[in-house]
Amino acid sequence: MPKHALSVTREDDFAQWYQQVITEADLAEESGVRGCMVIRPWGYGIWERIQRLLDDRIKATGHDNCYFPLFIPLSYFEKEAEHVDGFAKEMAVVTHHRLIMQDGRMVPDPDAKLEEPLVVRPTSETVIGAAFSRWIKSWRELPVMINQWANVVRWEMRTRMFLRTSEFLWQEGHTAHASADDAREHALSSLEIYRSFAEDCVAMPVVAGEKPENERFPGADATWSIEAMMQDGKALQAGTSHFLGTTFAEAQNIRFQNSEGNFEHAWTTSFGMSTRMVGGLIMIHGDDDGLRVPPRVAPWQIVIVPMLRDQHEDERVLSYCHELRAQLAQLTAINEPVRVLLDTKPVKAAAKRWGWVKKGAPIIVEVGARDVAGGNVSVLRRDRLYNEDGKLASEIMERHDFVDRASDMLENIQQSLYEQARSRLDGNIERGITDFAGLEAFFNEGGKYPGWVEVQWCRPTGDVLAGVVERLKALKLTIRNVPMDAPPADGDCIFTGRKAAERILVARAY
Amino acid sequence: MPKHALSVTREDDFAQWYQQVITEADLAEESGVRGCMVIRPWGYGIWERIQRLLDDRIKATGHDNCYFPLFIPLSYFEKEAEHVDGFAKEMAVVTHHRLIMQDGRMVPDPDAKLEEPLVVRPTSETVIGAAFSRWIKSWRELPVMINQWANVVRWEMRTRMFLRTSEFLWQEGHTAHASADDAREHALSSLEIYRSFAEDCVAMPVVAGEKPENERFPGADATWSIEAMMQDGKALQAGTSHFLGTTFAEAQNIRFQNSEGNFEHAWTTSFGMSTRMVGGLIMIHGDDDGLRVPPRVAPWQIVIVPMLRDQHEDERVLSYCHELRAQLAQLTAINEPVRVLLDTKPVKAAAKRWGWVKKGAPIIVEVGARDVAGGNVSVLRRDRLYNEDGKLASEIMERHDFVDRASDMLENIQQSLYEQARSRLDGNIERGITDFAGLEAFFNEGGKYPGWVEVQWCRPTGDVLAGVVERLKALKLTIRNVPMDAPPADGDCIFTGRKAAERILVARAY
Repeated sequence: MPKHALSVTREDDFAQWYQQVITEADLAEESGVRGCMVIRPWGYGIWERIQRLLDDRIKATGHDNCYFPLFIPLSYFEKEAEHVDGFAKEMAVVTHHRLIMQDGRMVPDPDAKLEEPLVVRPTSETVIGAAFSRWIKSWRELPVMINQWANVVRWEMRTRMFLRTSEFLWQEGHTAHASADDAREHALSSLEIYRSFAEDCVAMPVVAGEKPENERFPGADATWSIEAMMQDGKALQAGTSHFLGTTFAEAQNIRFQNSEGNFEHAWTTSFGMSTRMVGGLIMIHGDDDGLRVPPRVAPWQIVIVPMLRDQHEDERVLSYCHELRAQLAQLTAINEPVRVLLDTKPVKAAAKRWGWVKKGAPIIVEVGARDVAGGNVSVLRRDRLYNEDGKLASEIMERHDFVDRASDMLENIQQSLYEQARSRLDGNIERGITDFAGLEAFFNEGGKYPGWVEVQWCRPTGDVLAGVVERLKALKLTIRNVPMDAPPADGDCIFTGRKAAERILVARAY
Repeated sequence: MPKHALSVTREDDFAQWYQQVITEADLAEESGVRGCMVIRPWGYGIWERIQRLLDDRIKATGHDNCYFPLFIPLSYFEKEAEHVDGFAKEMAVVTHHRLIMQDGRMVPDPDAKLEEPLVVRPTSETVIGAAFSRWIKSWRELPVMINQWANVVRWEMRTRMFLRTSEFLWQEGHTAHASADDAREHALSSLEIYRSFAEDCVAMPVVAGEKPENERFPGADATWSIEAMMQDGKALQAGTSHFLGTTFAEAQNIRFQNSEGNFEHAWTTSFGMSTRMVGGLIMIHGDDDGLRVPPRVAPWQIVIVPMLRDQHEDERVLSYCHELRAQLAQLTAINEPVRVLLDTKPVKAAAKRWGWVKKGAPIIVEVGARDVAGGNVSVLRRDRLYNEDGKLASEIMERHDFVDRASDMLENIQQSLYEQARSRLDGNIERGITDFAGLEAFFNEGGKYPGWVEVQWCRPTGDVLAGVVERLKALKLTIRNVPMDAPPADGDCIFTGRKAAERILVARAY
């Protein structure tokens, strides 16, 4: 058994392990400001990669980026009752615009009280709806499809880094369409962007499906999500897409003249993915040595660590490393130039190696005087860190051979991380449960990390649904979604015994 | 004389003209939220180009991107008196974290009052200083060089789009160093990033220099700026770099152990550039037909407008345009792939052409059935819109010839916009004034858009400086900076008659 780089294993204490990865991989830290984190360079670098790749996809499907105000007047929220009910309990409210000194302390200036308090945006449907109402006059302008990258604030009592913080970063897409069908279709196409992005770029297999009524976005007619399985068997909602009907169009007066000259309300959608994705990446790809970052979203894909000994060979080692870096930087892998770093910080080579292992750089290349003499490099793949004997699987390769193979190796690592996660997801969804007792038993007796179940239900609404939600809540379970690619129902509802309407995923979740 | 696309000319009313460009080029609009604007797709696209190019330069010089909290506890500000004096009068203060319904209206919940109010960051020295204090232990970790892209809020009573808004977007770099010399040198290197970025990418010639004492950033030991000349002769501060001494290190306890094992305060710097740059770009490159965007920061560099007539040739025109687009997208100009759009929106071709003229796309290519038949394209360069006879300078070129020349054309437009601005700057700095009466006369009698003056002064401090600032203020003038490349002083101070110490730029400014 290898001795691992972290002091807590996933098996021992998943929550502690998660926290340790975040610290040891320099992803984020507590900021001293309640509920807000500092995203450190490696964590932010991963987020920037996510932004770049997702942004390309959002733009390629015809959305334009814009920027809307951080502050939303209270009156905007009052217009849409259901929406405000969903958010009012957790918003930061700006009430003053100046501070003064009073008894040696700074306090909000009573003379600078705002006439109308401003809410720090928890999401931007209302303020973007107001813009849509100004912009949209005729069917000719539809669809309007925009997106913004922004910070949002939802006051949270219990926070966890990346997963639930008072301030977080996200992308929010907003669109308006001439018909319900167009809008609904668009919401599904946004979901598909998320599915393919999560799987292709983050190597995160997901289940795409519709949320049950009780989990809809406040004000939405329908909400879809992608759900990923973490290594502790819990689900993480990694992105959501909403068909908003005419809810916001009615509240914000978004109307257009149709081709017959009559006025209609527009049909709107919204969709969002956030820094939560980084938390998901950690819990899906991390191991007991730290993070493993899929090459497509790794800020550095290859890190070269020169093994210097304060001796005169150091110069030859360094120049060999510089040449290697230049060669690798010429390569293309997975349709982008390879991102390669030569780490020359004044830190010992072994500490650097383990630092990059914990950060999860896909390939770590060590170069010492002996490698230089033999024209070699020592290559460590982060997805195959140890040999079966528990020793580090560092492979000595001829330098030109490594350069020739580096692109393929990166593609292969991307693929292998995806496949590991895929088989974990596929292997941990129990589909054979046909009654509530079975469900109960599965989660009570299914071990520490039981996974998910897919069961059939009658798609109840109202009080019946509320009862189902309560029964699940007692087991700390929630309905994740109705998988789009599940076969049609053919049995009975495990909650009511009635004829089932569809299949749902039930799981513990973040 | 051509009839121009805007109804107000720069000569008529510069402020009105500026506003009209913003509206007609779809750059931004009022949001309905006091002091905040909506940045629309074309405006945001320019900002994204600025971000991308500036970010590359900031990263290439060793800065890592991070993200710090939006909210800053009041106590952080109280630690640094001078800093808070500079900002306290204009900050948004969050006092509550929940809303409730009261008498049918939403109000901040008195039970959810924060124990310590939170300030929406006007800048992040204090919260980043707190992080530096956690991160920095030893000289080995220095320098620490980070950057963040963020929104900040400074409550403004009078706002003007892009130039002065309560919320704006910016980049703020923050560094810590082991010595005063290192920090000062770094602050100057950041200024050089700004100078070269403004000139090379935004085609905006600037004067780099140190700000006088009264214009320093609150808490800084020295502040440098780049200043650009707008077409109305006013100055725009387009970026600033600050040497902060140990002010923030002392307030936030940023200390390190030096190589002898003793503890010292670190020396810090910060530097920022904001969405103000977009305002500067408008006022430096816009003309009476709208905006002209330098190719390096244009979201689309070439826009193809198919001239469709709802006839059967339309299909041939469109397929010709698609081929042309594909050919152009293969090209590289100014070290990047050419950004080319085929505009297929259901709008008349003439309206599209003028829309893109007003937006300032560098090259507009029109393609009609006759062009297709002849293998031609009609090319309009935005920097040379009219012939001398006042007619549109649309040039018919063979398609392959245009494709061959498009890259050069874009480089040439970039260069020509820079040169126009350069000769305006060089031609409008008066250097012959040797007394205050001359200065007064220059601005009172120098016409509508007088430009700048470079004069000599004794670099006064304290009350004498305050007196100088007052005298200038009466003329609506400010000292912009001490140009770094100006010759040494060789005369007398125009304010005091004493021997001069250096040369300063005096101007009206935004």
